[in-house]
Amino acid sequence: MRIALDATGGDLGSELLLDGALLAINKRSDLEVVLLGPEDILSEQVARRAGSEKGTSRLSIVHASQTVSMDESPVDAVRKKKDSTILVGFDLVKNGKADAMVSAGNSGATLAAAIRKLGRLKGIARPGIASLFPTLNDPVMLMDIGANVDCRPQHLFQFAIMASSCSALLFNKDRPSIGLLSIGEEPSKGNQLVKEAYSLLQESSLNFIGNVEGRDVYKGEVDVIVCDGFVGNVSLKISEGLAEAAMQMLKTEIMQSLRAKIGYLFIRKAFKAFRTRLDYAEYGGAPLLGINGIGIICHGSSSSLAICNAIGEAANMVESRVNDSIMKTLAQATGQK
Amino acid sequence: MRIALDATGGDLGSELLLDGALLAINKRSDLEVVLLGPEDILSEQVARRAGSEKGTSRLSIVHASQTVSMDESPVDAVRKKKDSTILVGFDLVKNGKADAMVSAGNSGATLAAAIRKLGRLKGIARPGIASLFPTLNDPVMLMDIGANVDCRPQHLFQFAIMASSCSALLFNKDRPSIGLLSIGEEPSKGNQLVKEAYSLLQESSLNFIGNVEGRDVYKGEVDVIVCDGFVGNVSLKISEGLAEAAMQMLKTEIMQSLRAKIGYLFIRKAFKAFRTRLDYAEYGGAPLLGINGIGIICHGSSSSLAICNAIGEAANMVESRVNDSIMKTLAQATGQK
Repeated sequence: MRIALDATGGDLGSELLLDGALLAINKRSDLEVVLLGPEDILSEQVARRAGSEKGTSRLSIVHASQTVSMDESPVDAVRKKKDSTILVGFDLVKNGKADAMVSAGNSGATLAAAIRKLGRLKGIARPGIASLFPTLNDPVMLMDIGANVDCRPQHLFQFAIMASSCSALLFNKDRPSIGLLSIGEEPSKGNQLVKEAYSLLQESSLNFIGNVEGRDVYKGEVDVIVCDGFVGNVSLKISEGLAEAAMQMLKTEIMQSLRAKIGYLFIRKAFKAFRTRLDYAEYGGAPLLGINGIGIICHGSSSSLAICNAIGEAANMVESRVNDSIMKTLAQATGQK
Repeated sequence: MRIALDATGGDLGSELLLDGALLAINKRSDLEVVLLGPEDILSEQVARRAGSEKGTSRLSIVHASQTVSMDESPVDAVRKKKDSTILVGFDLVKNGKADAMVSAGNSGATLAAAIRKLGRLKGIARPGIASLFPTLNDPVMLMDIGANVDCRPQHLFQFAIMASSCSALLFNKDRPSIGLLSIGEEPSKGNQLVKEAYSLLQESSLNFIGNVEGRDVYKGEVDVIVCDGFVGNVSLKISEGLAEAAMQMLKTEIMQSLRAKIGYLFIRKAFKAFRTRLDYAEYGGAPLLGINGIGIICHGSSSSLAICNAIGEAANMVESRVNDSIMKTLAQATGQK
């Protein structure tokens, strides 16, 4: 099992990414990680760790001279930066030199690079990005979180097929339940796109439970939630923003009284556990679905544990042959019509 | 100043609504509240309070025999329930017997009733619902939060005009800053609707600061945020859901250790202040904008304080002549073209 890791992507710095790679390697004995980036810098970093840390023999380096920055246009980046870590990485996957690719860099560019190098799965109109959200129960998989901002009903239908296939394998569920993100439970609620997607899902053999509302996302009563990439991205970012703001508001309130400050000393550990639970980056990465291969995008501010989890998740997706499962479900769904 | 209050709407029960009305009355000496609902029940409730509570002489009752429930279709409700509290209430506004109407009931139906009785402001294509979100600084006004799910760029442009006029008066700001909710700061980011709305806003004389992302909503660095009603409703509901889930997660973590439980005793007050701060219902109601009159919708689970605040907000909007201000800004914006 060989996973390629973009060792320059994101706001993280390659040392933290290396930490994550080694964590993953030491968790799983058959795992190798290929680091992508400037060879001189990376080999020095690996050499420095070789004496003191376990698992460095299962690290290798493939040189890539360019990095795509977070705010670069995906189309431009993929067209102009031929020797970027993401293009080099998906090239390895294409040529069978790596089984999957993980990047914490520019997500749009990573998806564009994947599509360019690996192509779409046959029959899939729009590959997209799925992401796990923490809930009161198991995490929920939401797709799409930003790749496809203007969708047709058929695209949402295919997101349901892809995300439910992936969720089934990652969480070992037989038929994950699928909800359509809308603004009311009744089929008549929602915008034109959602109403039409509702009909497609309703008529299919998928385990569609109907519309779900924004307030249902965090309840954890549904396995997969489908929406267009604009709504998905706003949902993701507004959740991040609220979680951050809430922490700051709570801190402000606590700092206003000595009594509360004393209480905080006792409660600190529970607080930390809570923050970790709310931090969806900890749940691993966001799978690229609909491409002819395996790719995972991590949050730009991931921890080394999140990188480790994403690498594990990529290995998991390779082993469980998620794309075969998507193709099978797609064939069944198309066959019905 | 006479405000009509739907005394049956929402999940609240009329006693809590009465509490809110009396709170508002005792805050402001020129205020009268007209209670809408079944006369027999309401007059008994008012009579019971008359001996012990101040301000009951400024309560009056107008009979309305029907209530629109929360999940009723707005179109059906307005067509069929001629004697509903919301239609009776906006009739009072139309005939000058009340200055504004407040309801914690079905928001879609309340807007539909307002449009039916009062009509649209001249030149406004789509009236909508604005709502205040708590932030790290002043609350931000987001429009639309659910009335208009399929929008054209011109509609978003008019939301900006309406919400900024309202925000200017409520928060005493000269030229409130306006952001367009999108998935990246650059003008090229977003769906087709947002990109076209960006151009309209950019070319106008409004104080448009560009795209804002979901994670900016809670920062409080912008006064007004504009989006279509589908995205706005999802944003509102997902925030509610996350706030609720986060509270539960935190509680679970605290209950897992004795140490944390002890800490909670010290920190409880700060916690409560935090919850109140996060509860946007406390910030008053959601103004209906674009109708030829004043109407406010409250959350179905509002506290009596929230009802009191909404009544105060309605009075504020009457006095500051928010509709004149909207018409003026609209004329300026249209004149430019």
